[in-house]
Amino acid sequence: MLKANLKEKFELFDEYWTPKIIGELNDQFVKIAKLKGEFIWHDHEQEDELFYIVKGSLLLKFRDRNDVLLKEGELFIVPAGVDHLPIAEEECWVMLMEPKSTQHTGSAQTENTVSIEDQEWI
Amino acid sequence: MLKANLKEKFELFDEYWTPKIIGELNDQFVKIAKLKGEFIWHDHEQEDELFYIVKGSLLLKFRDRNDVLLKEGELFIVPAGVDHLPIAEEECWVMLMEPKSTQHTGSAQTENTVSIEDQEWI
Repeated sequence: MLKANLKEKFELFDEYWTPKIIGELNDQFVKIAKLKGEFIWHDHEQEDELFYIVKGSLLLKFRDRNDVLLKEGELFIVPAGVDHLPIAEEECWVMLMEPKSTQHTGSAQTENTVSIEDQEWI
Repeated sequence: MLKANLKEKFELFDEYWTPKIIGELNDQFVKIAKLKGEFIWHDHEQEDELFYIVKGSLLLKFRDRNDVLLKEGELFIVPAGVDHLPIAEEECWVMLMEPKSTQHTGSAQTENTVSIEDQEWI
């Protein structure tokens, strides 16, 4: 295991909504992603998902509770089974933590869905 | 679940080497701790442990591999079973991620050991 410098890792890619794996522990992956625009409504049936904002801000919309606006340095855990819609008005950098089995679009399949097997380490 | 602002959470306590819980996901805790000085050699037999440096720097010494110096914005995962000694020359703020079952001093029991039941949320 090598140490990872978060900001340097973010400099290695430009695509939005394609999480890259930077670490692995206890059957979870640590991932980073650049977000911009509106994603899709989805949930992760069995898996809680942590968002930590490295740069920018991220709006999480929910169907059954108040929206949450996350700013740099803030973290939030979306519980399993909770439908959410991430929206980044400007480019936002996030660190994610979730089980290896987590698909980024949850049970929703879209043309942007990256299959679990195709997730890349960076 | 409320969002957590990392720096604000760190302002809530001053003690060193006493991790506080700030989040919970997939049977793991997200914790924060202030570190200063030398801790003790210990390992976590079954549990990988993530260190993310929020402020300052942290030296991790190992018995079987090269030392790692972690600076602000860097993360490192200590694999299960790997003996490590954290040393912070100056005050260092870390975010930790580890299974709920993880004792901060591993199998070592010291006068500073906080039992798993006594770990506090902040």
